[in-house]
Amino acid sequence: MSSAKSEWKKTWQGALSARSWQRFELEGQNFLLKTHVDHREGYEFLLTDLTSMWYEKMDIDQVKKRCKTLNPRFEAPLPTILRLLQDNTETKKDSTDYTIQHKGEGMVLVLETKVGGIRFTWEFHCQQAQKEMLRDQLLEPLMTMVGELGRREHRLGQLLKAKDREIEDYKMGGATVSRKNLQTERFDPTTFRKEQLVCKEFDEQVGQGWQEAFSRENQELYREVMLTQAWFNREEEEDEEVSDEDSSLLGGMTSHHAAGATKGSPSRVDEQRSPSVSPRKRPAGSPLKAGGAVSTPEKSQKDVELMRREALQKRLQEEAQRKQAKKKKKGALF
Amino acid sequence: MSSAKSEWKKTWQGALSARSWQRFELEGQNFLLKTHVDHREGYEFLLTDLTSMWYEKMDIDQVKKRCKTLNPRFEAPLPTILRLLQDNTETKKDSTDYTIQHKGEGMVLVLETKVGGIRFTWEFHCQQAQKEMLRDQLLEPLMTMVGELGRREHRLGQLLKAKDREIEDYKMGGATVSRKNLQTERFDPTTFRKEQLVCKEFDEQVGQGWQEAFSRENQELYREVMLTQAWFNREEEEDEEVSDEDSSLLGGMTSHHAAGATKGSPSRVDEQRSPSVSPRKRPAGSPLKAGGAVSTPEKSQKDVELMRREALQKRLQEEAQRKQAKKKKKGALF
Repeated sequence: MSSAKSEWKKTWQGALSARSWQRFELEGQNFLLKTHVDHREGYEFLLTDLTSMWYEKMDIDQVKKRCKTLNPRFEAPLPTILRLLQDNTETKKDSTDYTIQHKGEGMVLVLETKVGGIRFTWEFHCQQAQKEMLRDQLLEPLMTMVGELGRREHRLGQLLKAKDREIEDYKMGGATVSRKNLQTERFDPTTFRKEQLVCKEFDEQVGQGWQEAFSRENQELYREVMLTQAWFNREEEEDEEVSDEDSSLLGGMTSHHAAGATKGSPSRVDEQRSPSVSPRKRPAGSPLKAGGAVSTPEKSQKDVELMRREALQKRLQEEAQRKQAKKKKKGALF
Repeated sequence: MSSAKSEWKKTWQGALSARSWQRFELEGQNFLLKTHVDHREGYEFLLTDLTSMWYEKMDIDQVKKRCKTLNPRFEAPLPTILRLLQDNTETKKDSTDYTIQHKGEGMVLVLETKVGGIRFTWEFHCQQAQKEMLRDQLLEPLMTMVGELGRREHRLGQLLKAKDREIEDYKMGGATVSRKNLQTERFDPTTFRKEQLVCKEFDEQVGQGWQEAFSRENQELYREVMLTQAWFNREEEEDEEVSDEDSSLLGGMTSHHAAGATKGSPSRVDEQRSPSVSPRKRPAGSPLKAGGAVSTPEKSQKDVELMRREALQKRLQEEAQRKQAKKKKKGALF
């Protein structure tokens, strides 16, 4: 990690996108959900059954108001209320009742619990989230995770090869194992992959379906993927500020959307926009679909964005290829 | 792999679900697409930009008719036409022009190429696919792939530990490496994971976005995941035939949908249904959403399905736990 990234990480406030998904079984159905709480902003809540996705964003005034309506006798400061919501959506609590109500296209999740003997109720009133949110919060992160886990498989194969070379050296020096069962087989990545696809454990894993996709370790991976994307977007944003002139040369109208301008905005369009990965600050390789209910930028601006993204993508690919070539030259460890 | 599975695999005809996704850049946008061709049935075609998904299913008569309309002078037997379509959607050919046209909610992909000097045109006229298709063909398989790749990371860690034990044994016997650079560090899975999240290669991988999700190896993984799911569904189907009496005791109406009954059906609902993973034959752990445009089964039947699924899920989980416990008893390799 670059020191710039680790510096940035320390001060970054985080966002809904950097929170990982929690698996919840509600009324016999499997859901994934996540909540992001910010004591100055309010909360964002996202829920999916993998077919539809529902979203609610509430600012602090709205939270206070709803709390008063639902819990007239419940007196607590805002941070306590927000913490309650976070706690009850981060893990499913035995002491809390969760009820799901479909309301047309929308979805209401009702929490009922007791805090210090007093009943506390909350209702998340969610609207159908835009399609882009399913892509940004679930589909693309999962695809990136698959890519990264593939890279790790490769890396672990390299480590195994190195161990084999060390073992070979001991054997050449006349060393033998004291107990036969300590002896390992030479590692071969191709054989390994083939074996994994036909072993019993593979069937078991697939039989469990998507239950393991957000295990503790994979949640961490999800968060780091999203954080790194946010870091890239930040860099891109800075680049944009520098290259304003370039892009206007390309025929672009580069009126800047202020970062975070959508926060707390009351309009439905802004509320529904994917919170931290705005359509114009996307990492390389992401498909950009114009249209939909989000107000689309000017055609010319879209072209500039596309070119910029393509350039970044190309740069990254070239860099990766250079590194690959370098590695090969060094003596193909894997 | 059980011998029953490998036997079944040999005779299984395959389906659209068992074909992996191909990455296509079309007019500056990234798409994923796949085609399944069957010389007796026709073809199925699926395309996504990760936000929307479009689908077309054509039987052989429809294919012949469209070919005649688009290519009056092109005389070729059906297998040739189907092969042309498969070839031109499996990899992007330099000699073919690909054009995308949005038509309301629909999408038309036009291919234009030359075969033996004669112009050949094809149009895939796709409708917006149902949400369940995005889940069945992309989201759930990706989540299962993440789970499986996590399992492999674990397995490779075990192999590294075993190598370390072998190396330790040589060292205890007085062996030394002949060259210092052959010496490896002891492997620790926790340290490894932490390092992977903060290394430069991680940033590079994330920077590439989802480009690697369907690399050659991951395509193979996707296919095996889908094939194994189809195998489970087949088993479940057989189970259902045996347990008809049970389910009627549970208040269910278990009129069987014949497997593959939707094939070639002209009705829109059937055409749009996810081709080989029908909603009632889903692996454990899959969320089932009632409603939507697909005609939903009776409430009572839904309950039976839910219970059946839950029972299967429980059985698989118990089995996994038993195995886990057994492994731990054996002496915790990892």
